[in-house]
Amino acid sequence: MSKNLTKRAEDYSKWYNELVVKADLAENSGVRGCMVIKPYGYAIWEKMQAELDRMFKETGHSNAYFPLFVPKSMFEAEEKNAEGFAKECAVVTHYRLKNDEENKGKLIVDPNAKLDEELVVRPTSEAIIWSTYKNWIQSYRDLPLLINQWANVVRWEMRTRLFLRTAEFLWQEGHTAHATKSEAIQETEQMMNVYADFVENFMAIPVIKGVKTANERFAGAEETYCIEALMQDGKALQAGTSHFLGQNFAKAFDVKFANNEGKQEYVWGTSWGVSTRLMGALVMTHSDDNGLVLPPNLAPIQVVIVPIYKSEEELAAISEAANTLTAALRKLRISVKFDNRTTQKPGFKFAEWELKGVPVRVAIGPKDLENGTFEIARRDTLTKEVVSKEGIELYIDSLLTQIQESMYSRAFEYRDTHITKVENFEEFKEVLATKGGFVAAHWDGTSETEEKIKELTKATIRCIPLDQVKEDGKCVLTGAKSSGRVLFAKAY
Amino acid sequence: MSKNLTKRAEDYSKWYNELVVKADLAENSGVRGCMVIKPYGYAIWEKMQAELDRMFKETGHSNAYFPLFVPKSMFEAEEKNAEGFAKECAVVTHYRLKNDEENKGKLIVDPNAKLDEELVVRPTSEAIIWSTYKNWIQSYRDLPLLINQWANVVRWEMRTRLFLRTAEFLWQEGHTAHATKSEAIQETEQMMNVYADFVENFMAIPVIKGVKTANERFAGAEETYCIEALMQDGKALQAGTSHFLGQNFAKAFDVKFANNEGKQEYVWGTSWGVSTRLMGALVMTHSDDNGLVLPPNLAPIQVVIVPIYKSEEELAAISEAANTLTAALRKLRISVKFDNRTTQKPGFKFAEWELKGVPVRVAIGPKDLENGTFEIARRDTLTKEVVSKEGIELYIDSLLTQIQESMYSRAFEYRDTHITKVENFEEFKEVLATKGGFVAAHWDGTSETEEKIKELTKATIRCIPLDQVKEDGKCVLTGAKSSGRVLFAKAY
Repeated sequence: MSKNLTKRAEDYSKWYNELVVKADLAENSGVRGCMVIKPYGYAIWEKMQAELDRMFKETGHSNAYFPLFVPKSMFEAEEKNAEGFAKECAVVTHYRLKNDEENKGKLIVDPNAKLDEELVVRPTSEAIIWSTYKNWIQSYRDLPLLINQWANVVRWEMRTRLFLRTAEFLWQEGHTAHATKSEAIQETEQMMNVYADFVENFMAIPVIKGVKTANERFAGAEETYCIEALMQDGKALQAGTSHFLGQNFAKAFDVKFANNEGKQEYVWGTSWGVSTRLMGALVMTHSDDNGLVLPPNLAPIQVVIVPIYKSEEELAAISEAANTLTAALRKLRISVKFDNRTTQKPGFKFAEWELKGVPVRVAIGPKDLENGTFEIARRDTLTKEVVSKEGIELYIDSLLTQIQESMYSRAFEYRDTHITKVENFEEFKEVLATKGGFVAAHWDGTSETEEKIKELTKATIRCIPLDQVKEDGKCVLTGAKSSGRVLFAKAY
Repeated sequence: MSKNLTKRAEDYSKWYNELVVKADLAENSGVRGCMVIKPYGYAIWEKMQAELDRMFKETGHSNAYFPLFVPKSMFEAEEKNAEGFAKECAVVTHYRLKNDEENKGKLIVDPNAKLDEELVVRPTSEAIIWSTYKNWIQSYRDLPLLINQWANVVRWEMRTRLFLRTAEFLWQEGHTAHATKSEAIQETEQMMNVYADFVENFMAIPVIKGVKTANERFAGAEETYCIEALMQDGKALQAGTSHFLGQNFAKAFDVKFANNEGKQEYVWGTSWGVSTRLMGALVMTHSDDNGLVLPPNLAPIQVVIVPIYKSEEELAAISEAANTLTAALRKLRISVKFDNRTTQKPGFKFAEWELKGVPVRVAIGPKDLENGTFEIARRDTLTKEVVSKEGIELYIDSLLTQIQESMYSRAFEYRDTHITKVENFEEFKEVLATKGGFVAAHWDGTSETEEKIKELTKATIRCIPLDQVKEDGKCVLTGAKSSGRVLFAKAY
């Protein structure tokens, strides 16, 4: 099974595409640029959703739901946002099909059912939400308004890749409104921290927190905070963004509140989101040439038990032991699958669960029953050990914690050894071409230089790290003065 | 607050519309026919989702996600389904907007970005899903395929009403594939029973199980099973449907499997769904002239505690008691809100929580502290009692169970006294015009008669009940022979 998977070293991109499909995460659909998220992939996404949802609610947010469609006049109200998304909008122009008189059994768009005003399929929901907030906010008592939405959005991407860049994707988008600028900035930072916490502790992916340059900022935002991760091929991936919107949307949609002195003021806004793109980050951070490697916190199946037997009697005895173990593990809220299919050999099952990234595999054979032991295999390290069955459920429980931590450490170490300081443009290009990863370089702060570097190297400024150290230096391209390093990388 | 709510007896429809908005469930948006589901309404929907999702998984289903868009050629493949939905489809024809040269700051559809093939925004997902199943199903080993999707769908309704009929709504749609006809029928029936179980035991709404007539059947189905509820104004509401699709979609999308003798056969299908329409049923079954009445199983807040005080010292002492009670209730997994706002009077708070349908209200005043008692009010019966605070959390816990059951009983009694047998068309019209509810009448089994009756009375056949008793009779309209009664009603 895993035999057919392209090796990462051969063709990383091909490896990724194959793995996503073969591990039953997702596949391309019959609709251009849109994917089908398959049950196994969706089960991982559901685990992400549940944890994020819990974190949002703990920080005071409520869920709500706003329309899929945005009338064109509403869409264009905030000019920068509209400009940023206009080029990739799916547009509904008609509301009916009718029979094609010339082609029996075929349908055509009914020209008599043209909409007076076109509807944009939401690429993001600031416009529709702020047009609603206008009615919800009158006084400072209505603030802060802390709302999140789980939804599908559509951005008409020309070159698409499963999870990483699809015309339709699933995400959550938080949209909050505040009485003061400082409170809104605090919220923006808080949500970036929530994302970092989730991605690091739940997905076992280390991230760098930072802010985007003006070039890379969300259309309509004053400041975009982000968390940046590093994939195994040395390319960066933006894992989540949190935007301080200033009063831009409040002004575009005339959202004012009476402050506690009765004076009318514009509201301050934020928005923040993560998407099914995180599934791509998950695959590319941890997986190997044998298939997926899932952190225990996100694995739909955390432990798989495979029986090794030659006779029905052996299977019966093994099944009894397996069922006892299953019950003991479930008591500890560990999800277990006993793979007792009689149609497949153990070798096939091993390869299949390896491909699907199940963190722990327990094999039980007749000898184990005799000896009172089980064989335990770790997916992340591909190591095996024989363990006494006494209290094995507790051992597995702590092993899962250990795997979660160890996966993070390994990814952290990779990331940490792939941040390279360079002092001139030759080094810059050299590092990008050979080692990849983040290049920490001085930059003169201008968009022109940023664009020129992108043009020459395909690297963009991923972020100005929040923990940037003040340091006098010279821009790697222009030699102009700089007061600190920013992180460049090629990126997904 | 509730003072401003129209009385049901005055104008039921107006009462409903006002209540949905005033209780913060939903409101109309700036997009024609589309609603905003507000946080309080969405919290109820989330509780429905969580319970249904649990029930689907317990019956072996997995969630997945399929594209929002259906290419026209795919949409029209199953002719009856296409015909049924063609008249109410939102159609995407372009994928880009551009600046309007004549109107600075405005956007227009870019004529150069016309799609080669139009995309229908899914009104239901059979087409896209069966086109995918073709690749997922090869052999009997791939069956049954038991999948559910939580999604938004769009049906371009001309006259819309919050929750009951909106252009976009949220729902779940199950889509399963089976090797045999009997297994598919069993699945269809099972899911109707899951829905009935959920709606009766979780929403406290009694339902009648039945099958639809050919006229009312889902477009593309061989048989539609349904659960029908009765609203307080005597109109019926279809609360959920489960369709046996036969081999219609398998044939339209060429989905075959090799049976265990290696012979190719078409797959048998089902689909089933419930939507945010259930929110409308919830409101119209239980609520009263003071506002919402929520069954404890669905109430985002099950218990609200309101302090009655004159001084800060009193509030401090009451708060201590309230916090103790809150902690004790939370241990029992009861959701509690202590409404300690100092900006509002108790009377205002009482009215507000009455409007929002919180099942149990606890009022605590200085006298209660002296006496060791609290005042407990039930939302469903609007009754009050003074209860000793010893073990009050257990009392409230059992009270919540009692309220849930009592709400069901009350709705059941109303429904039961609103099923009226009639023997001729005069009686039929008389019952419909005065009492409303379900009219149990003989019908000759023809679509013509069914349509004629609808034309004359606006009543449709809600279902042929599964527990229909064999009984010779004559059709109320034509006098032709009939072997059992069906249920007519005016319906939402």
